[in-house]
Amino acid sequence: MSLLKIGIAGLGNVGEEVAYQLIKGFRVQKNLFKFELVAVSAKSKNKKRKIDVSGIRFFDDPLKMACSQDIDVIVELIGGDEGVAKKLCFTALENKKYLITANKALIAKYGKQLAELAEKNNLFFSFEASVAGGIPILKLIREGLIVNDITELTGILNGTANYILSEMEVADKGFEEVLADAQKKGYAEVDPSFDIDGIDAAHKTIILSALAYGKMPNLEDLSIQGIREITLNDIKYCNDLGYKIKLLGNSLISKDLNGKEELFCSVKPWLIAKNFGLSNVSGVINAVQIESSLAGPVMITGAGAGGEPTASAVLADIVDIANGTKLFSFGRNSYDIKENFKTTPYREKYKFYLRLNVVDKSGILADLTSIFKDYNISIESVIQKSNQEDKTAELVIITHKASNSVLEDALTSIIKLDGIITKPVCLSIYS
Amino acid sequence: MSLLKIGIAGLGNVGEEVAYQLIKGFRVQKNLFKFELVAVSAKSKNKKRKIDVSGIRFFDDPLKMACSQDIDVIVELIGGDEGVAKKLCFTALENKKYLITANKALIAKYGKQLAELAEKNNLFFSFEASVAGGIPILKLIREGLIVNDITELTGILNGTANYILSEMEVADKGFEEVLADAQKKGYAEVDPSFDIDGIDAAHKTIILSALAYGKMPNLEDLSIQGIREITLNDIKYCNDLGYKIKLLGNSLISKDLNGKEELFCSVKPWLIAKNFGLSNVSGVINAVQIESSLAGPVMITGAGAGGEPTASAVLADIVDIANGTKLFSFGRNSYDIKENFKTTPYREKYKFYLRLNVVDKSGILADLTSIFKDYNISIESVIQKSNQEDKTAELVIITHKASNSVLEDALTSIIKLDGIITKPVCLSIYS
Repeated sequence: MSLLKIGIAGLGNVGEEVAYQLIKGFRVQKNLFKFELVAVSAKSKNKKRKIDVSGIRFFDDPLKMACSQDIDVIVELIGGDEGVAKKLCFTALENKKYLITANKALIAKYGKQLAELAEKNNLFFSFEASVAGGIPILKLIREGLIVNDITELTGILNGTANYILSEMEVADKGFEEVLADAQKKGYAEVDPSFDIDGIDAAHKTIILSALAYGKMPNLEDLSIQGIREITLNDIKYCNDLGYKIKLLGNSLISKDLNGKEELFCSVKPWLIAKNFGLSNVSGVINAVQIESSLAGPVMITGAGAGGEPTASAVLADIVDIANGTKLFSFGRNSYDIKENFKTTPYREKYKFYLRLNVVDKSGILADLTSIFKDYNISIESVIQKSNQEDKTAELVIITHKASNSVLEDALTSIIKLDGIITKPVCLSIYS
Repeated sequence: MSLLKIGIAGLGNVGEEVAYQLIKGFRVQKNLFKFELVAVSAKSKNKKRKIDVSGIRFFDDPLKMACSQDIDVIVELIGGDEGVAKKLCFTALENKKYLITANKALIAKYGKQLAELAEKNNLFFSFEASVAGGIPILKLIREGLIVNDITELTGILNGTANYILSEMEVADKGFEEVLADAQKKGYAEVDPSFDIDGIDAAHKTIILSALAYGKMPNLEDLSIQGIREITLNDIKYCNDLGYKIKLLGNSLISKDLNGKEELFCSVKPWLIAKNFGLSNVSGVINAVQIESSLAGPVMITGAGAGGEPTASAVLADIVDIANGTKLFSFGRNSYDIKENFKTTPYREKYKFYLRLNVVDKSGILADLTSIFKDYNISIESVIQKSNQEDKTAELVIITHKASNSVLEDALTSIIKLDGIITKPVCLSIYS
């Protein structure tokens, strides 16, 4: 049982908790493995923390820590897909350190390159904490379901967005108000864009696709739609119709008629029927549903963020190092990972939810339904709510199954109609 | 990359699927690991199977297979906690073979002894398939949540029982009729006792307790109650009251006032509020909910039985061997596993559901409520349904929170009342 010497770069919520657990010691492993926190690097050395780091070597420059002789493992908890975090990770592996990171943006962009370097130097490199916080989803795919072909992944991957959507319903408040509350409570960043515009969920969806299929689409190539346009009314209409709105990351692989693999990949809000498992995942909880060839559908839920859950994932990776685990980071040789894998527009037909704000005048519904008829889209149900004060109305339409492209064409015609006030909100219905 | 030579004992549903996958080859690993199915043992050599075993060494006696020189891994899929399965497992480890088994009864009884032998001989020994079929729940506890203290496990661990309870509601049929249907479909054994009387779920609960806490209670010491007494009416009353009935295995560890560890462990039907995750797990699906110190609550659901899901778990264990995984079977040294760990009667207070069949005469409700008053148990709601034909009535009572022991005392008095026709059904409400 040799001693594993650990250096942590970044002492935010997660870094502080990892350091605390390493100093305090944790379940089971005291008599099996020996860990020592030997170095830390953070912006401020003297900030008040729940741990005393005064006896531990402090590096102002994390890159110097990554070059230090007597460190075995670098834990990167700085964040960001470029800059010092990127340099630190490459430097650590070049200097033959094991590397653990929670940095989803970096892995989504440079995961393959880092894995190549780790393999070249025969080093364990893992990033369990980068997706779904305390849920050991990467290990589940990489090891637990290793013999399965995975065909689809669907996840509630961003706790902030899920909290906002849940809280709008619970508190009966609009998007902006709930977002402001969430920012006050620390559930949302001052600049909430990564979370509510779907970027964070997209990074995680890319990492899951790499683990499951060995295919990494580019962020720029993903269809990404956030939750800013969802109103409290949308949530209420959907509730009445038997649905919840959830921001889902989805990644689906299949073969076209010529046997060529196609990857469908998106982040967007979906309607989910209330009897579906994912619809019951509320608040800051994350969930991932996996379609697998032998085990069938497997779903796992748990805390997607926060210091303790994320530290749990970081520390599990550290234990894997101590245990001599030799698995590849993405469950396969890095040369088997296809970067820049082109995504294909979804071909499957879905039911759609449309909400339109219109001038409340006669004939508008007739104009709309006639467009739907032209595009051969049948309507399942319509709700019309008129506002006498400003002579406007909200129209909610649920379509029967239609293809995305046909619906988009219909929407292009609808937007041109006289009496349409704002861009229609259009969400697919998950089934 | 050395070749791992595998022998399978037992070619039922699961064994056949494991053999099929090994012959066919499966995802990812072809270029990383090399497996070869070199021997099988089964009752009948010539039974028609989806695999051709004619070119593979056949052993009439699986014990001889376990002694064979050129086999590295024995996969035991015979079943049963004594007899040939037990002999085979011990013989395999004594002969320095890696051992993989799906045998929950055997692990619940001899898991510690087998783990000791495996450790002595420095062999990987695992049994992922023994709990919750295709769900990699043991790996999740043993590795994914390794740094967490686990305080409670609750699971829907028997697919047959869960199918029967779900199907009674869906098909609007009584217990006996649904059981007979399930037997016809192959979802239930000809002798269904292990599944519907809770024994199978108890084996799995014991294994989970060993993994999570290192404590193994005896089967005989567990509080076990099956689902035979649940009627279609019970399911309907509960549905009206906002609950589902689920057979749950539960294992809970805490410390008493003197800091001594206490284990609460049971298998019984519970009422679960419909907004709780576990209540939505229907049919043959299994689920396990884990309360952990850092990651918080984690829940995983998936197929709990069947050839393919169970084979997925067996094969994941085989890949772990090929990968040189060195983890202990129960996530700790076997000498840290406490066998025969005494369970403690549940002390926590719960709400209870009671269904009583009574003679429909005046005064019976007064008698009942007076007993509840004597025992200081308050009543939350009462439903009374009279049957004019035979002058009987069903009384359904939901109590406020009360301790198990007080409720049992009250029941003892209730049973003695004049007009009580059958033993009351009493279920706790999960919260």
